[in-house]
Amino acid sequence: MSWLDEINWNADGLVPAIAQDHRSGRVLMMAWMNRESLALSVQENRAIYWSRSRGKLWRKGEESGHVQKLHELRLDCDADAVVLMVEQIGAIACHTGRESCFYRILNDGVWKTVEPVLKDPHSIYQAGHSHE
Amino acid sequence: MSWLDEINWNADGLVPAIAQDHRSGRVLMMAWMNRESLALSVQENRAIYWSRSRGKLWRKGEESGHVQKLHELRLDCDADAVVLMVEQIGAIACHTGRESCFYRILNDGVWKTVEPVLKDPHSIYQAGHSHE
Repeated sequence: MSWLDEINWNADGLVPAIAQDHRSGRVLMMAWMNRESLALSVQENRAIYWSRSRGKLWRKGEESGHVQKLHELRLDCDADAVVLMVEQIGAIACHTGRESCFYRILNDGVWKTVEPVLKDPHSIYQAGHSHE
Repeated sequence: MSWLDEINWNADGLVPAIAQDHRSGRVLMMAWMNRESLALSVQENRAIYWSRSRGKLWRKGEESGHVQKLHELRLDCDADAVVLMVEQIGAIACHTGRESCFYRILNDGVWKTVEPVLKDPHSIYQAGHSHE
């Protein structure tokens, strides 16, 4: 049996994937993977997600260069979520140009942006669309 | 508008919630929240999830005592995932008696358990069932 068969894929054949910086422990983003994208992530040693909005493989960094090198893959007790310990090339995971996608903190009932844009998104994405 | 209205709940009215140790940065678990459970988590300053299997609120630690005190709540760029920075009471988040639910690492095509059981699950849960 393949290690992929041990994963409890959801009704859409997906599993939530949490990308964490392997050094700082910072949670960079959460996206989804299907069987093919997870297999390819391990094979190519980089995060490859499944884009639900575009319905296709999303090789993180394919356009931005912000590739996530895979250092370690973890599975949880229920086998329905994975953590990817990654090295974030360019130190930017978010399409807004921030290190992490989790840049808003709840503060007195308001979501407050607490992290700087490190790079103008327009200079990250030539084509100008917001997601890779 | 409430901060809750800014969240992109999925078709089932849920959002994935990632619990991370506020000191070590360790990802402890991933579960789901609905509007009520997230509102209550902030109100009571502790993680309260929505148990999809049981179809009811799951006050993390209600049986085990392994409460997760909420230190910070973060929202991602797409507003469809949250990170909870928590203090894990008892230093055990997983129902298997381990610190984190992500205790298996992919190693040469095999999921390998790399973390010790800190406490016998039977002594954690009086009723003997595997989940709170």
